[in-house]
Amino acid sequence: MTDREALGCWEVLDRECVADASPYLKLHREKVRLEDGRVIDDFFTLEEPDFAVVFALTRRGEAVVIWHYKHGPGRVNLGLPAGYVKDGEEPLAGAQRELLEETGYTAPDWRHLGSFSVHGNRGCGKAHVFLAERAERTAEPAADDLEEIRVELIPRAALWEHITKGDVATLGAAAGMALGISASGEGRGE
Amino acid sequence: MTDREALGCWEVLDRECVADASPYLKLHREKVRLEDGRVIDDFFTLEEPDFAVVFALTRRGEAVVIWHYKHGPGRVNLGLPAGYVKDGEEPLAGAQRELLEETGYTAPDWRHLGSFSVHGNRGCGKAHVFLAERAERTAEPAADDLEEIRVELIPRAALWEHITKGDVATLGAAAGMALGISASGEGRGE
Repeated sequence: MTDREALGCWEVLDRECVADASPYLKLHREKVRLEDGRVIDDFFTLEEPDFAVVFALTRRGEAVVIWHYKHGPGRVNLGLPAGYVKDGEEPLAGAQRELLEETGYTAPDWRHLGSFSVHGNRGCGKAHVFLAERAERTAEPAADDLEEIRVELIPRAALWEHITKGDVATLGAAAGMALGISASGEGRGE
Repeated sequence: MTDREALGCWEVLDRECVADASPYLKLHREKVRLEDGRVIDDFFTLEEPDFAVVFALTRRGEAVVIWHYKHGPGRVNLGLPAGYVKDGEEPLAGAQRELLEETGYTAPDWRHLGSFSVHGNRGCGKAHVFLAERAERTAEPAADDLEEIRVELIPRAALWEHITKGDVATLGAAAGMALGISASGEGRGE
C-alpha cells in the first residue's frame, strides 16, 4: 500500500496507431513505463469522441428515458438521451442538443454531474453527465441516429426497479440514472 | 417515435477481426443491418473480458475506496476495487477476490446491483456491479495489478463531494458508487 501522494503516473514511451476509423475510433498500441519502472510493450488504448448523457426530469418528477436497441449489449434496453459531442461544441450544448433531438424536450435548469472516462484502462472518450430539471416537451423528436427510439416518462422513484431487473444495459445509462437520482434528491430530505 | 414492442435488433451480416490482443482485447469490423434495413459496412466492436466492481461498506458506513493511477483518464483518481473476471469464474467470486486482493477486506453480505456493457456501441465487456456490506479488513492487500493502490475509508455521505469535485475519473467507479449509495440507502429512510 502506498501513500496517495506517492502515486505516480505512467509514461507513454511510444505510440502506434493499429486501426484507424476516424473520426469515430482509433486503436493505439502504446509502450508505457509504469510507476514502478516496469515497461509494457503493448498496452492498447482507444481514442473516441466524447459524449453527453442527460438525466432529465419533468416538473412532476418523471425521468425522460428512451427505449432503444444498442449494439454493445445487443438488445433493446432502457437508456438516457445521449450522443457524441461535436467538434468545437461545449459538452453542455451537446447535451441540450441531444435531449431535444432524441426526445423533443428542453429544460431551463442544467447541472453538470461529472465527466468520466468510459473505460478505465483504454480511455474510449469521456461521458459528460448532466442533470436537466423542469424539462418540458417543446418540439417533435428529430434524431438521425442509427437506432430507432421510443421515449417514455418514468417516475424517478420507479427507475430503480428498472435498473435492478436488468432493463438498463449500458454503464453510461446506469451511471447517468444513479447519479441523476442522487443529485436530484439533494436538499429535498430524500 | 416507435412503439417499444416494434423496436428491433441489428443483424450482423459479417464480422472481421482487425486487431487481436487476446485475451485482453479484440477489435472487430462488423457489417450490420439496422432495424430500418440500412446496411453499415464498418461498425466497430470490441471484445474484452468482463470485470467486477465492488462498492463495499464497513459496519460504520464507510466505503472502501482506492486511489490509483488509471491510464484511461491518465491521472491518479478515486476508484473502487475492481478487476477482470477470470475464465470460468462467477462474477460474484471475481468481485470477492478483487476486494480481498486489492484492499484486504472481506464481507458477509453481497448483492448484485446489475451488469452493464461498458460501451453502448462497441461492447467492451460487461461491468458486474456488487454491493458488499459489513466489510471488515481480514488480510493484507496482495494485488498484482499494474497500478499501485492506496486504500482509504470514506464515509458514504462524503462520497458525493468527491464525485462532484472530479476525484472520480472513470464511468465504472462513478456508476458503482452512485448505484451503491442508492442501494445501501434503501429501507433506511434515506
